Amino acid sequence: MRKIHVIGIGAGDPDQLTLQAVKALKSTDVFFILDKGEVKSDLTRLRRDLLDVHRPEGTYRLVEARDPERDRAAGGAAYSPAVGDWRSARAGIYERLIAEELGENESGAFLVWGDPALYDSTLGILEEVQDRGAVTFSYDVIPGISSVSALVSRHRTGLNRVARPVQITTGRRLAEGFPEGVDDVVVMLDAHQAFRRYADQDIDIYWGAYIGTPDEILVSGPLAETAEHIARVRAEARERKGWIMDTYLLRRHPQGRGGAAE
Amino acid sequence: MRKIHVIGIGAGDPDQLTLQAVKALKSTDVFFILDKGEVKSDLTRLRRDLLDVHRPEGTYRLVEARDPERDRAAGGAAYSPAVGDWRSARAGIYERLIAEELGENESGAFLVWGDPALYDSTLGILEEVQDRGAVTFSYDVIPGISSVSALVSRHRTGLNRVARPVQITTGRRLAEGFPEGVDDVVVMLDAHQAFRRYADQDIDIYWGAYIGTPDEILVSGPLAETAEHIARVRAEARERKGWIMDTYLLRRHPQGRGGAAE
Ligand SMILES: C[S@@+](CC[C@H](N)C(=O)[O-])C[C@H]1O[C@@H](n2cnc3c(N)ncnc32)[C@H](O)[C@@H]1O
Ligand SMILES: C[S@@+](CC[C@H](N)C(=O)[O-])C[C@H]1O[C@@H](n2cnc3c(N)ncnc32)[C@H](O)[C@@H]1O
Repeated sequence: MRKIHVIGIGAGDPDQLTLQAVKALKSTDVFFILDKGEVKSDLTRLRRDLLDVHRPEGTYRLVEARDPERDRAAGGAAYSPAVGDWRSARAGIYERLIAEELGENESGAFLVWGDPALYDSTLGILEEVQDRGAVTFSYDVIPGISSVSALVSRHRTGLNRVARPVQITTGRRLAEGFPEGVDDVVVMLDAHQAFRRYADQDIDIYWGAYIGTPDEILVSGPLAETAEHIARVRAEARERKGWIMDTYLLRRHPQGRGGAAE
Repeated sequence: MRKIHVIGIGAGDPDQLTLQAVKALKSTDVFFILDKGEVKSDLTRLRRDLLDVHRPEGTYRLVEARDPERDRAAGGAAYSPAVGDWRSARAGIYERLIAEELGENESGAFLVWGDPALYDSTLGILEEVQDRGAVTFSYDVIPGISSVSALVSRHRTGLNRVARPVQITTGRRLAEGFPEGVDDVVVMLDAHQAFRRYADQDIDIYWGAYIGTPDEILVSGPLAETAEHIARVRAEARERKGWIMDTYLLRRHPQGRGGAAE
């Protein structure tokens, strides 16, 4: 039976690969790399670099495919259906890759940025491919260091405060309002610097871009003092490199609610 | 200057150590292991096993200390102050360990279960030790695979659903009510199976105990059908081994709210 590894490769630092991921890399016959287009080609190169380090040339096959562009223009209410279409288009591609590029007793791998559990569609797509039933395979998931975990380690802080919760959400959600019931919020996928909306509140931000790579940028401090600075640094970096990936933790100081802050 | 590594070692599987963690292990002179008493001695042994694998005997020093017991009996409103006392008692111990056991130009390491960013006090304590100013040192943090990440990888599911948030919280909090504004909730530190309270709702659970170890147990399914089963399995395992560590994801089916489920 065909076997697939979904391997979390960490969010930028090649040393954040786990020993388990290295073992899986070494036992894989065919690597699938799905390119999302020119802006993401740096990320594709990082995956190829990992293979160069851990696998001697000529010992594996590499299959690159073009990921269908998500209809980003849709936005708003159309967001979910667009995601749905995009996922089944991708399921078709994954199905074909597995059926045509992987021999009956071979193993394949998808190298997933960060941790496959966070804002990544690979697991959902593989489930969909299995549900279709046209190709049979088994798969396992190898967790990776997420950009969230990498972010807070670089800032040497925790995700949660003692005995308190933390929420992980998207820029789109944060733009709609500060999440209920939590004072610690990690934000991913924020193209619009939603944190600026909260610059008048007593909130600290721990921000990072290109975390774990040589281009890493870190800024932290009270939002009131840093929000505009971060927006500027971000715009400049994005201009310079052509793309940006950034993540941040917002830590609100509980006011007049009782309860220890730390 | 003294240098400290706070190393996330993963939540049970020794192969979930990262390459970065292995490098830090190899460059450490003195390892500090804080024992929390007999029930946790299996966890102390796991740390020693990691050292056995990655460091030849005789190439490092190992300092074991007894962690002061947290006043668990306190509970309720007294929870925060008790945590505070406990932390400064620990800060005193850490300060002494660093000052007395680590030479001026040596490096020490704390091996932290899972990811140091999640429900772990090491970073807060080191900050407190630095604030006291009695001993100077620098420190860095090496992220680890958390039990949260390990849990969902074993269940081959994501933490969040597409474009939606996820909250990580404690059993104590969940017992007070289902968190606002989220349908995906990861629960840690739950000694009282708070999930049972929600067994009449349309919620799936992904539960795991001793994840990543040879004793690993996984159960998933609709809460209505699995809650009592999990409570029983948990009680038996706890009885057998003398201790248990379990974590779970609750995934609520959004009803009549509109919005795609996946
Ligand atoms: C599609 S999600 C994938 C997340 C990934 N699975 C993980 O575990 O980090 C992409 C988002 O992750 C965050 N991200 C990923 N890598 C990053 C990095 N090296 N530095 C900062 N943020 C990063 C950004 O918020 C970006 O918008
Ligand atoms: C003090 S917290 C430390 C968490 C740790 N820093 C991490 O990243 O997983 C201890 C809690 O973590 C969870 N946990 C840790 N290791 C686990 C394992 N191997 N299996 C299941 N749960 C685990 C349990 O919920 C336990 O109550």
